Amino acid sequence: MLRLHDVAASSNGYKVRLLLAQLRRPYELVEVDIFRGGSRTPAFLEGNPSGQVPVLQLESGQWLPESNAILAYLAEGTVLLSQDAALRARTLGWMFFEQNAVEPKLGSARYWKLSGRDRGREQALAYLQEAGRSALEVMERHLSRYSFFVEEHYSIADIALYAYSHLAPEAGVSLEPYPAVRAWISRVQAQPDFIPGPAPYPAWARV
Amino acid sequence: MLRLHDVAASSNGYKVRLLLAQLRRPYELVEVDIFRGGSRTPAFLEGNPSGQVPVLQLESGQWLPESNAILAYLAEGTVLLSQDAALRARTLGWMFFEQNAVEPKLGSARYWKLSGRDRGREQALAYLQEAGRSALEVMERHLSRYSFFVEEHYSIADIALYAYSHLAPEAGVSLEPYPAVRAWISRVQAQPDFIPGPAPYPAWARV
Repeated sequence: MLRLHDVAASSNGYKVRLLLAQLRRPYELVEVDIFRGGSRTPAFLEGNPSGQVPVLQLESGQWLPESNAILAYLAEGTVLLSQDAALRARTLGWMFFEQNAVEPKLGSARYWKLSGRDRGREQALAYLQEAGRSALEVMERHLSRYSFFVEEHYSIADIALYAYSHLAPEAGVSLEPYPAVRAWISRVQAQPDFIPGPAPYPAWARV
Repeated sequence: MLRLHDVAASSNGYKVRLLLAQLRRPYELVEVDIFRGGSRTPAFLEGNPSGQVPVLQLESGQWLPESNAILAYLAEGTVLLSQDAALRARTLGWMFFEQNAVEPKLGSARYWKLSGRDRGREQALAYLQEAGRSALEVMERHLSRYSFFVEEHYSIADIALYAYSHLAPEAGVSLEPYPAVRAWISRVQAQPDFIPGPAPYPAWARV
């Protein structure tokens, strides 16, 4: 059986859990205690040198790190990832955009604020929030014309982009100026087998 | 013929030019004047809502944004991207890591320093440099055990990660503490049909 090394509060992990739910794939969850060094053990770092969750462990025992790579692996052969070469590349393109412009900005700002790591880093936080707004503007520009990110069909690009953009308010970034993004968030939440997430940060994770 | 919308000084663009050279694929280069708004025109934003280079324009006329998605598209069916599902996912995984942990840290810090945009943002710059060092540590950990990023073979994951990591000194981050990364950089530069890059920033791009 597939085994997912993950943390309930991780929205990168939530992407994978959402896709697994929508594909109705059974899996075993291994909760990693990242706040107490569980992802920095020699065994974990051998499977994923970046020391991050989620990691999907295949039936073969192989470890697959990186949430968006896991989405692409699991969605292969399903309607959530096109077989057309150009459409696949556009799907991956939005997922690279997510890892570049959304997750390290809105995701990091959210983590800092929820865990108390923003104290003494006001300028760096303001930079992340401003860059997060720029990413939301790009999404708004696209979603003003299209229902989803690739060809009007819900895909793994939507799952990837939903994970941190819907949490923008927790990063201190309002979604008020982005009506097309808010309408798209509602469409994602209305998909079959949708599950909400991620779980809240545990209070003891605060520094 | 393939048409590449690009800027000589972009290292995201350089990734694509390096791969095209190594695949010996002919293409037409369209130089975009990003420093004077050339990527913010309505026509450009229709093809790529993020307003970023590079964009690959296919023979069909379709626009493919995002450097790493372009790499995956062009490398399909070549030895630079495995056909094995798990190895493909690991290749993409390192490329997502690059867009998350390397490009927005070392790439942004380099851009700020070379263009004068670091003035008044010392704290944010220090954050980017520190995060860039963390990414180089992850790469060092992997490269201490393996010659390349996926299965001991040069792949598009190496092209993606080379683009900004070899420029770390221009971001104000020394490569001295990372001997395995430096040895890997030499191996990448020794590949057949390697071309150096990217071009230096034009002096007039400074603010």
